[in-house]
Amino acid sequence: MIDFPYISNICKSTNSKIVMLVADGLGGMYHPDYAATELEAAKLPNLDKLASVSSCGLSTPVLPGLTPGSGPGHMGLFGYDPVKYLLGRGILEGIGIDAPIERGDVVARGNFCTLDDDMNILDRRAGRIRTPEGVLLTNKLNAIQLNDFEVNVHHVMDYRFVLVLKGKGLSDAVTDTDPQITGVNPLISQPKSGNADKTANAINEFVSKANALLKDNDGVANGLLLRGFSSLPSLPDFNSSYKLKSLAIASYPMYRGIANLMGMDVIKGLKDFDEEINALKSNLSEYDFFFLHYKPADSAGEDYNFKQKVKALEDLDSYIDQILDINPDVLVVCGDHSTPSYMGSHSWHPVPFSIKSKYSQPNPSGVFTEASCKKSEIGTIKAKELMFTVLAHAGKLVKFGP
Amino acid sequence: MIDFPYISNICKSTNSKIVMLVADGLGGMYHPDYAATELEAAKLPNLDKLASVSSCGLSTPVLPGLTPGSGPGHMGLFGYDPVKYLLGRGILEGIGIDAPIERGDVVARGNFCTLDDDMNILDRRAGRIRTPEGVLLTNKLNAIQLNDFEVNVHHVMDYRFVLVLKGKGLSDAVTDTDPQITGVNPLISQPKSGNADKTANAINEFVSKANALLKDNDGVANGLLLRGFSSLPSLPDFNSSYKLKSLAIASYPMYRGIANLMGMDVIKGLKDFDEEINALKSNLSEYDFFFLHYKPADSAGEDYNFKQKVKALEDLDSYIDQILDINPDVLVVCGDHSTPSYMGSHSWHPVPFSIKSKYSQPNPSGVFTEASCKKSEIGTIKAKELMFTVLAHAGKLVKFGP
Repeated sequence: MIDFPYISNICKSTNSKIVMLVADGLGGMYHPDYAATELEAAKLPNLDKLASVSSCGLSTPVLPGLTPGSGPGHMGLFGYDPVKYLLGRGILEGIGIDAPIERGDVVARGNFCTLDDDMNILDRRAGRIRTPEGVLLTNKLNAIQLNDFEVNVHHVMDYRFVLVLKGKGLSDAVTDTDPQITGVNPLISQPKSGNADKTANAINEFVSKANALLKDNDGVANGLLLRGFSSLPSLPDFNSSYKLKSLAIASYPMYRGIANLMGMDVIKGLKDFDEEINALKSNLSEYDFFFLHYKPADSAGEDYNFKQKVKALEDLDSYIDQILDINPDVLVVCGDHSTPSYMGSHSWHPVPFSIKSKYSQPNPSGVFTEASCKKSEIGTIKAKELMFTVLAHAGKLVKFGP
Repeated sequence: MIDFPYISNICKSTNSKIVMLVADGLGGMYHPDYAATELEAAKLPNLDKLASVSSCGLSTPVLPGLTPGSGPGHMGLFGYDPVKYLLGRGILEGIGIDAPIERGDVVARGNFCTLDDDMNILDRRAGRIRTPEGVLLTNKLNAIQLNDFEVNVHHVMDYRFVLVLKGKGLSDAVTDTDPQITGVNPLISQPKSGNADKTANAINEFVSKANALLKDNDGVANGLLLRGFSSLPSLPDFNSSYKLKSLAIASYPMYRGIANLMGMDVIKGLKDFDEEINALKSNLSEYDFFFLHYKPADSAGEDYNFKQKVKALEDLDSYIDQILDINPDVLVVCGDHSTPSYMGSHSWHPVPFSIKSKYSQPNPSGVFTEASCKKSEIGTIKAKELMFTVLAHAGKLVKFGP
């Protein structure tokens, strides 16, 4: 764990290389229609073979029963206590679209919404207007000028946008304007601490000017709702804490963004996992820790699509040989959370992982499933406890205490 | 855990007797040459039979992935959080040779070293000079007089010694003079806090006077390096916290020393485990908790010697009947850490334990191995959590809360 008080005494830099493959939403659940979990149903000859020579276990993302978002799910895997280092919704949304955000900015997630004549919320998503209209409205909002701060509005998708406030003296200790229910007025943003008055006023000024602009629009999107005001957090630096030189390889911006907040170098402009694998190969000599992100398993699980998730896992399986070919000293296969297609959402279930290194012990089960990992060498640990075991397998930890 | 806030409410004194046998470096790892761990390869009829009627599990010494030194390894077993109660290197070295150390003394581990004409370190261990020369040089150093503090230098072995500074106003908040690399000058000791100036000055005065003395010596040992300045820690008292009357039986001074710091009574002058067993028998009526230390398994593991570790475990096995003959209410077999002969060092792997009492539940595996203990009744817990389970089995814990 990155907060371990003696971390600088126990981590040491070495030449060994670690590849940490994070399969988003890796874990699943028994699905009654298929009488199996997705990992059990999938044909995974390479992941199974890998598991048979790996130290396996399950990682609990935060706490038993707790379902993490992508932020806490990833923070834990890299040894950050996901409760202590909780990223704000605004920040996560902002880094998810590569929005330029600097230290001190305050960022919020925004929805266009529909208001009635008494300003009561009729629809929190403005009839789910599509991207072309969303872009148009976002451009309008960018014309707003505030007394104290600079306004930057970035479109995300459909009815969603990100508001970035820039300037001196901002504070993210302000309340949402989104009441998260219909039939009531949007809320007035309130300061949660003494130094946030100016920010709350600016937010309310922005909303009022936006309402005036959107009213003229005469469409269903005649208002907006803001939530998750947040600033860039101060995180312990991944590289200096663990004495690593790390690279994040992820085609989705949000995961690059999280990695970047931790201090990892990131590669932009990768379209898919093929390009990620190529990026891994071509950057091998420059780094000693690679965070490689694989998204499709999560997306299929979110869509309640068992067969698609099985296919996403089988696709992942077909890349394992390519990764083994580069001969990393440690290859970790893990996930940020489970996404059972039975639930169609992230879930609280512990996530399988395998660690292959010269210190791995044979795993007689020979399969990579939730149940086999639970019974394997390492058993169930907290996600935030995983990094030390990974570093230990890489020979990058020295003895703690005399 | 000794820091449990209601410990005085839940611990009670009873007549039941606990023997806690700590087999140093007990746990191992799969060794490819033998296709087994040491516990799996060893013939352990008595430990296996004991395990079959014991509540078994694995203890994680500190955190998953973290390899503990002997200090943290033992602290955890007795319920002390090994991160909170980290013993300094100097203290551990000092108690390891029974050096007279009082509260307020500052103790460092020292190496004789070889310096070149520019005072750069050529060899951090002075060619590993042997004990006779080391004793001679240590005696020279004992002649050094400092302005503010008393100097006591104790020889340990070969090129190693312990420096004990005595006097009023000492602080252990000072930096090492040992840079732990060659090719550079030894470091000047610096105060890490305001009240440590006088101590740092005294250390630098000692080093300078020592260098002058050692230079005259005209040998390879013409300098010294000091590290791990530390004082006796304030630890919660083992006996009053758990309401026990405890005795440590260990032939190696370091383990006696750790026990003594916790407040246990100790027996000195025991040569081997035979004498330890005799000491257990002859002191049975006087105490209700016995810490019995067995060293050979660790030593063999450190030597990469699989067969020797197997033999050390088999030797231990042959003593189990003698311990059972005294009919303790609770017999615990556990270890401070794993020492796989495959690695030739302490490791991070969780350590098997068995607890036999009238509350133990049958263990169908019938063997005492890493894998069987993982699957047994208690499963994997933190070492610092073990003591409560031991006390519970002795009927020495009452209900927590109404």
